[in-house]
Amino acid sequence: MTTYFYTASSLDGFIATEEDSLEWLFKQDFDEEGPMAYPAFVEKIGALIMGANTYEWLLENGGEWTYEQPTWVLTHRELGTPEGSDVRFSQDAGLAHEQAVGAAQGQGVWIVGGGGLAGEYARAGLLDEVWVQFAPVTLGSGKPLLPVAVDLELVDVARNRHFVCTRYRVVKPGTIGQGSK
Amino acid sequence: MTTYFYTASSLDGFIATEEDSLEWLFKQDFDEEGPMAYPAFVEKIGALIMGANTYEWLLENGGEWTYEQPTWVLTHRELGTPEGSDVRFSQDAGLAHEQAVGAAQGQGVWIVGGGGLAGEYARAGLLDEVWVQFAPVTLGSGKPLLPVAVDLELVDVARNRHFVCTRYRVVKPGTIGQGSK
Repeated sequence: MTTYFYTASSLDGFIATEEDSLEWLFKQDFDEEGPMAYPAFVEKIGALIMGANTYEWLLENGGEWTYEQPTWVLTHRELGTPEGSDVRFSQDAGLAHEQAVGAAQGQGVWIVGGGGLAGEYARAGLLDEVWVQFAPVTLGSGKPLLPVAVDLELVDVARNRHFVCTRYRVVKPGTIGQGSK
Repeated sequence: MTTYFYTASSLDGFIATEEDSLEWLFKQDFDEEGPMAYPAFVEKIGALIMGANTYEWLLENGGEWTYEQPTWVLTHRELGTPEGSDVRFSQDAGLAHEQAVGAAQGQGVWIVGGGGLAGEYARAGLLDEVWVQFAPVTLGSGKPLLPVAVDLELVDVARNRHFVCTRYRVVKPGTIGQGSK
């Protein structure tokens, strides 16, 4: 039962501009059948968790809702749900994770974003793996990738066209050298 | 004649903590004979340029001065020079680069740091390549890797023990699709 933070990032550690633009990302070339690409990743996922900003960005920019998995959205606000979605709202990150793990039935849980939420889970010891696809661009400023101090263990690295794709295991207290998890 | 920014970074784009600590970097394992390692890189270098903070950090923490190449330090202050060094002080980044290129006699120029200085050269169209070795750690805050918006072209990626080593060409206006340099 693995909880993942899977995200693209600029080379200097931003997952979006200050204005939440991903134009710098979408102009890059990526092989959807290549290493660490999204289709193979999402097949392992049984439930999603995301912050309110990520959710609203998807509603405004993501087109049709394509996630079949149950999705927890962390928010204190009233937000709509798109047709065909299985979206639940929660104000408690820990409880949402517990419920998502239960719903995933042995499959993985994906923290979609943003970086602050992933950082919150990392700090709580609930994040197992971080997958980052680095686009060949620096932004200089923007929304931070993972705004906490975390030790990681490099599992895999591969080039996918314009991207450097990386996979890390989160090192938790007491797990170093124990093969973790 | 190539100008490089060669640096290590945290996964979230910081080259040092806010307090200029590199403890998170030095605890990692790196093969000095492996891909994109320092000894082979520095052999290509004929001159160095660095900012005053980087220079002072090296004086305080770097032990003996080991650079044989002439070194330009950008500073408005009076700073000492270590024994055996060939250090010149300059207040003009453009002029320093011109002089460093001349002194390098066909070899490369290395912008040692910090990120702000490398960004200044990138913006001026004087930076050709960016090499970043990513340590398996996030810091959450610190001194930024390259605090400007720059388009890059991925040249190479390799794993070197704990590090993801990357090499990029800086995309300059008019160079896209021309194979650049």
